[in-house]
Amino acid sequence: MSSTRDIDALIDLMSRLPGLGPRSARRAVLHLIRKRALLLTPLADMMQTVAATARECLNCGNVGTSDICDICTSAKRANGEICVVEDVADLWAMERSGVFKGRYHVLGGTLSALDAIGPQELRIPRLIDRVASENISEVILALNATIDGQTTAHYIADQLDGQVRLTSLAQGVPIGGELDYLDDGTITAAMRARKSI
Amino acid sequence: MSSTRDIDALIDLMSRLPGLGPRSARRAVLHLIRKRALLLTPLADMMQTVAATARECLNCGNVGTSDICDICTSAKRANGEICVVEDVADLWAMERSGVFKGRYHVLGGTLSALDAIGPQELRIPRLIDRVASENISEVILALNATIDGQTTAHYIADQLDGQVRLTSLAQGVPIGGELDYLDDGTITAAMRARKSI
Ligand SMILES: [Zn+2]
Ligand SMILES: [Zn+2]
Repeated sequence: MSSTRDIDALIDLMSRLPGLGPRSARRAVLHLIRKRALLLTPLADMMQTVAATARECLNCGNVGTSDICDICTSAKRANGEICVVEDVADLWAMERSGVFKGRYHVLGGTLSALDAIGPQELRIPRLIDRVASENISEVILALNATIDGQTTAHYIADQLDGQVRLTSLAQGVPIGGELDYLDDGTITAAMRARKSI
Repeated sequence: MSSTRDIDALIDLMSRLPGLGPRSARRAVLHLIRKRALLLTPLADMMQTVAATARECLNCGNVGTSDICDICTSAKRANGEICVVEDVADLWAMERSGVFKGRYHVLGGTLSALDAIGPQELRIPRLIDRVASENISEVILALNATIDGQTTAHYIADQLDGQVRLTSLAQGVPIGGELDYLDDGTITAAMRARKSI
């Protein structure tokens, strides 16, 4: 064999990351071995740290290092506005745009009849609790412009109808587009032009 | 901030891997956090192991876990034949094809006037030593079919002229093609049809 068992095992683990196939995993591992002090060791250490500390916020589903995340506990964020997103990558995309100053709620996916994902599989009951118990004036449904995303938005809108102002991202989100692919300016424009449902 | 400092640091380190940009690094880190027990912790552990044990073979430049690699020490590999490749990824590609049973020599790159890479920056002096001291009958120059690869092959052929049979991969390597992109069958055909220089 050209590579030893440990190196092969590392290539196999790396190839399980999204976006990396076997060939790019091999390239990445050779790169890591060449940059052992600058990259491999720091990366291993930081993975250990994150493995030990990362957790989902019990309130909103964001990823952080405490039971309640920085955004949920921050005194600088506006109370009364919840932006609902499908996953943490979408929350990060929204934060990069800097346009939204309220709190978030991460559903953890979308409703999907095909994959048997109902409201209980997502963080929808918790969202309904939050709207009832926190003093919420507006829920912004920032879901992807996909069929499942829009189905989920309609379901949530039905559940919260009459309890709160409901809005969705409007101008700028392309049909079939996903938030995490959009540039900051597009997200900002869509947020500023949000419309009532 | 949406993500904590450690998670941001992990994303930054991941984005330095070849083939991963900032967006795919963020996706990879979220995937790792979700698959903490199955992927993140094993990956961190294996990176620690490889960081502690991986080294370059002092003889041929292959990557392994001992000063002299498994291929150089194996009693099952044919003596007398050295296959010269540009980097370890090419050696691995050759091994996957299973066609070559001799030993290797990894140059660590190609000659490049533009990047000021001369014979001393590569493992060329060591190759000339090996041909003089090991009982070598054939040197197969399995370099990429690029301008720098072919320049390097000609330089080595000049240095070893008259001392050993020199061959190069022939049929099957596309113009401008790189070994690591080829399927096993193409590499096997090219090796079987190798011709004298
Ligand atoms: Zn939170
Ligand atoms: Zn070796």
